[in-house]
Amino acid sequence: MSKTFSAGLRQGEYMKKKVLLGAEGYRLLDRFGIPHPEYGLAHSEDEAAGIAENLGFPVVMKVISPDIIHKSDAGGVVLDIGSAGEAREAYSRIIRNSLSAVPGALIEGVIVEKSARPGLEIIVGGKTDPAFGKTLTFGTGGTNVSIYKDVSFAILPLTPEKAKKMIRGIRAFPLIRGYRGSKPKDEAEMVRILVSAARMFGETPGLSEFDINPLRLYEEGACAIDTAFIFDESTVPAAQVVRGENAPADTGIFSPSSIALVGASEKPGKVGTTMAEKLAKFPGEFYPVNPTDDEIFGFKCYPSVMDIPGSVDMAVISVPAPLVPGIAKECGEKGVKIAVIISAGFRETGEEGAKIEDIIAETGKKYGMRIVGPNCLGLISPYKGYDTTFLPITPLPGNIAFISQSGALLNAVIDWSLSYGLGYSLVASVGNQCDLKFTDYLVWAQSDENTRAIIMYIEDVGDGRRFMELVSEISPEKPVVVIKAGSSDKGHLAAASHTGSLAGSHEIYIEAFKECGAISASSIEDAFYSAEFLAHRKRYPKGGRVVVLTNAGGFAVLASDYAEKYGLNIIDLPTDVKEKFDGFLPSYWSRRNPVDIVGDARMDRFVAALDLLCKNEDFWDICVVISIPSNNIPFEQLAGEIIKKTKETEKRLVPVFVGGEEMKQGRDTLTSAGIPSFDEPETAFRVMGGIVESRHVSGNLQ
Amino acid sequence: MSKTFSAGLRQGEYMKKKVLLGAEGYRLLDRFGIPHPEYGLAHSEDEAAGIAENLGFPVVMKVISPDIIHKSDAGGVVLDIGSAGEAREAYSRIIRNSLSAVPGALIEGVIVEKSARPGLEIIVGGKTDPAFGKTLTFGTGGTNVSIYKDVSFAILPLTPEKAKKMIRGIRAFPLIRGYRGSKPKDEAEMVRILVSAARMFGETPGLSEFDINPLRLYEEGACAIDTAFIFDESTVPAAQVVRGENAPADTGIFSPSSIALVGASEKPGKVGTTMAEKLAKFPGEFYPVNPTDDEIFGFKCYPSVMDIPGSVDMAVISVPAPLVPGIAKECGEKGVKIAVIISAGFRETGEEGAKIEDIIAETGKKYGMRIVGPNCLGLISPYKGYDTTFLPITPLPGNIAFISQSGALLNAVIDWSLSYGLGYSLVASVGNQCDLKFTDYLVWAQSDENTRAIIMYIEDVGDGRRFMELVSEISPEKPVVVIKAGSSDKGHLAAASHTGSLAGSHEIYIEAFKECGAISASSIEDAFYSAEFLAHRKRYPKGGRVVVLTNAGGFAVLASDYAEKYGLNIIDLPTDVKEKFDGFLPSYWSRRNPVDIVGDARMDRFVAALDLLCKNEDFWDICVVISIPSNNIPFEQLAGEIIKKTKETEKRLVPVFVGGEEMKQGRDTLTSAGIPSFDEPETAFRVMGGIVESRHVSGNLQ
Repeated sequence: MSKTFSAGLRQGEYMKKKVLLGAEGYRLLDRFGIPHPEYGLAHSEDEAAGIAENLGFPVVMKVISPDIIHKSDAGGVVLDIGSAGEAREAYSRIIRNSLSAVPGALIEGVIVEKSARPGLEIIVGGKTDPAFGKTLTFGTGGTNVSIYKDVSFAILPLTPEKAKKMIRGIRAFPLIRGYRGSKPKDEAEMVRILVSAARMFGETPGLSEFDINPLRLYEEGACAIDTAFIFDESTVPAAQVVRGENAPADTGIFSPSSIALVGASEKPGKVGTTMAEKLAKFPGEFYPVNPTDDEIFGFKCYPSVMDIPGSVDMAVISVPAPLVPGIAKECGEKGVKIAVIISAGFRETGEEGAKIEDIIAETGKKYGMRIVGPNCLGLISPYKGYDTTFLPITPLPGNIAFISQSGALLNAVIDWSLSYGLGYSLVASVGNQCDLKFTDYLVWAQSDENTRAIIMYIEDVGDGRRFMELVSEISPEKPVVVIKAGSSDKGHLAAASHTGSLAGSHEIYIEAFKECGAISASSIEDAFYSAEFLAHRKRYPKGGRVVVLTNAGGFAVLASDYAEKYGLNIIDLPTDVKEKFDGFLPSYWSRRNPVDIVGDARMDRFVAALDLLCKNEDFWDICVVISIPSNNIPFEQLAGEIIKKTKETEKRLVPVFVGGEEMKQGRDTLTSAGIPSFDEPETAFRVMGGIVESRHVSGNLQ
Repeated sequence: MSKTFSAGLRQGEYMKKKVLLGAEGYRLLDRFGIPHPEYGLAHSEDEAAGIAENLGFPVVMKVISPDIIHKSDAGGVVLDIGSAGEAREAYSRIIRNSLSAVPGALIEGVIVEKSARPGLEIIVGGKTDPAFGKTLTFGTGGTNVSIYKDVSFAILPLTPEKAKKMIRGIRAFPLIRGYRGSKPKDEAEMVRILVSAARMFGETPGLSEFDINPLRLYEEGACAIDTAFIFDESTVPAAQVVRGENAPADTGIFSPSSIALVGASEKPGKVGTTMAEKLAKFPGEFYPVNPTDDEIFGFKCYPSVMDIPGSVDMAVISVPAPLVPGIAKECGEKGVKIAVIISAGFRETGEEGAKIEDIIAETGKKYGMRIVGPNCLGLISPYKGYDTTFLPITPLPGNIAFISQSGALLNAVIDWSLSYGLGYSLVASVGNQCDLKFTDYLVWAQSDENTRAIIMYIEDVGDGRRFMELVSEISPEKPVVVIKAGSSDKGHLAAASHTGSLAGSHEIYIEAFKECGAISASSIEDAFYSAEFLAHRKRYPKGGRVVVLTNAGGFAVLASDYAEKYGLNIIDLPTDVKEKFDGFLPSYWSRRNPVDIVGDARMDRFVAALDLLCKNEDFWDICVVISIPSNNIPFEQLAGEIIKKTKETEKRLVPVFVGGEEMKQGRDTLTSAGIPSFDEPETAFRVMGGIVESRHVSGNLQ
């Protein structure tokens, strides 16, 4: 955020848009009660001198020209003008400099304003995000924003509470709170101005981007001393333009009684063969469709969907792209409720493919037939017994819903989950989302009784507002973990080439996820650990106060490091608790948190320590039990103890059994009892830190 | 780093040390050619006025008092003095304010100096680190250091090349390089001043800490405008004080022909029993020692070491701490070359224990007997066939040396390595290091022919200088990976309680590791992946330019994100290479790096792509091959192809086979061929990023 606006907008491009300059900008601020210096607009040396004398010296003068965005660079700004003579001179100089910097520039005049006294420089910016609409940026001036990227974001609307979080969310907040003897700045006024600026942004038609840079914040009050406003009526969130609106889906369509597979085959090595084999296991009706075979895997095969005698709820389509529009039309006529289009060769391959995709979408709309994909792996419902993918494997039933914009990822993830013995309640590969969107699959997961947590892999969310509303509604009951790809510039490009859509700004996504209570994960591994952790009936930990219990001194040290790194709080032990530990630990125990119960510990020490913590649970939220292989500890027994104690407290007990085969049995016992565990402490802290941070900022943490 | 010096030093404590004030400080700067303003020292109003007139206005005046460190806070500084009258007035005001702020303060006078013109404010600090000795800190002024902690470090001595790295190593370097139209500052002068400051620090006897804050850096030249110097003759690196000096160990002691176990047992469940069972397998002579048994596991048992008929090279001691000094003495008399003291109850338990430890250390010195531990697990040499630990498991032989300050960690790590089929060349649990130090074990690993990479877990390195020298020497041949625990404040405390030693500053450790070419890892998992990666005969990658090859679009996007996050460079494809890809990839392939060879890829595309890259290898250093389960790809075959191509190029091919069981066979094939692989892309990028960053900064990367 700076006076240059988005890097993508070059000076010339502003010509196509309306830019509010100087005085007009100040009038807009007035309407929303945002303070700025007194000023006047001069069109001559005399006028400049007169206005300056009226305002009182010193004054500042700035050129007003739609062609000159970088006023200072163009020599279009003069500061500290102390007399009428200087004001005259400054006027001429500004005009001269400006015309020499931008020959032929249209100059509307020179603004003359009272010099604002020095204060803490603040930057407030507004930007329209393609996915989430209007957003606000806040930071302090100087190098803090430009070099350290120390900014906070919010998605409109902005409550005073959210504004306060923005202010307190930057690292430079000590400059506002008061720092090294400097007096506190007017935080209340800053809150008021942010809320007003958000209102201004939201209520001013066509305002697509603005910048108050700097605003000076004082011990009392504030003053906006430079602004820029860009109006662009064409700025509509891309999601709405590209995708069009679709009615929300009835979740009933995901429970078909009959499924047709168009492109079914029996020939070894063909995709349609794998799919037919899988769908042959569907407990409802299965109709293979292809024009050449009479029978496939013992099921009668039909030349077309139209030839199927009974009704068809779901049609899975896996034929070359050019054939899909015709088949979609037949499905529509047949009364198919949901078409799962596996075929690739649509929007992701370029313009030609996009056209075919549009035709299919239209067909779906015409017949009220919902469409999954195209260019996807389709759907898996282990409980309803169908799997439309061509994957060589089928996932186990479980409690996690996985919704993915990448089919490839799904492929890897399912293979992975089998080795961990983890299962899914439902799986959706969303593909190009020509009809059904992330939000539709979310609603499905929300209504699904087997789903206890949701993982989403997202490149571009589409309608971000609807997404946020929905996740806000779902996440208190069913935690939502999100892997958002495309944080790097090259990532953005890759995402574009991959799904034929332009990804929005990563920072806004992360802010959006926080605001709606979704948990961000950067890898599939972390997403899984997070979802497993949250699928437990206790869901979110109540806070980030951690007690560590370990029989391994080295891990006590590392646990402290990891806690600090991932924003968890290794809470001080209350004196009475410390004294109770004294009662059963060797005299040279750590006497602080992390509690090192010492390497020679037997089960009795673990039991006593867990007992003590569960009976004194006011001061902590999470107890991490880090154990290493030891002749003294039967790990089945320690696992059993943790299972038992988990029932005695509402706080979270988090077992980290570090080691390989010897510890695996303990971890397996915990998994069977539905208690998530870790085999490595850094992973545990990273996952818990991510959860606590997301939920804390979202305001949902109790 | 700021004028407050270390937070631990309170104002009063300065009284015990010598503080160089104003003029004395400037004289010290003079000796090393560091520029400062012209000045004079005034002891009266008249003198102040006279000096000011001689210098020329404006001037600055500052109180000189050993009792007043925060001169500004005490009202002891007046800026912008424009006349003789103001100078008089300022003198009185400074004296008045200072005495009112610190009643009874000793005031040596008031310095009067020419106001330095504004410039970029720089902070240069010097600190004596307990482990690494004299170190330098560099940063820019304002909030950049205090809020964003944007500083770089170096360990003395400082070459101009290292100085340049310090300057370019801060995030705020653009302020020096020239930024948004501001002219570049005098980087050459900054280099010269840093080198001079380092020389000043190194060559001034007793100087333990200093601060030039600020130094103003101009487009040409610079000027130090405030300084503080602390002399403390007692500041000697703690390592040397606490530990005393020991002769380097002869590595021959780690290849004993005979081993005695004092505290051997046959009773089930006892530590001495597990140890006896393990040592019974030693191919040399084994002598169990205990006063009650005649025979242990078929070996004749001796009442004491003295009663053993033959010579004893190594004695492993596992008896209660109070008995250890007597046994150590007997071992010394017997001519034992190395005593491995497993027993706990020494320095780690408090003063009493420390005393016993000192006695043992003395005994060792007296007899020329080297000591491992105490309070450790001892040593494992899979190739020499001994294991002195009481662990229930024994590691496989392999190529990695593991040297650990935590026995517990070792325990977990060995258990873990067994599940991965990984092995060790040697393992050392260093314990309290009363005699043999990290450096001795490093020399052992260096000389060991089976060791190809080294992992160290360190809480406190002891003699950091010797450590750095050694690692600099070893790391080009045998990569050294370090897990440094104690980065958090609470970690420091935990480390202190754990090893009875005070950990040094984490940042200095990390800098030291970089300077000597060690690779930092934050978790055991990452340390292992790094060591495995580096144990390959190609050792370090030649640089950080990465090409990604994948059949999974989603991972193409994530790979870009991870590369950016971990500082790797997703290099642009040369046009001719792009065109060659066009020749065998579908028309809608990504046409950029990451190279998405598209989901329906069969082996031929992978082969062609690898072929193309290996024939055009000038533009990349690392090729990451990310593959997901696919019906089209036989993974054994892909693994085979990677093994084959690895031989054809000096660059690194890094396979990431994402998935569980189905991919494991491919990974196992790679492991057998000595090619490290990953099952998750973020881990791969994190590990490679850590390696490239460490080696790049260390200057060892070609």
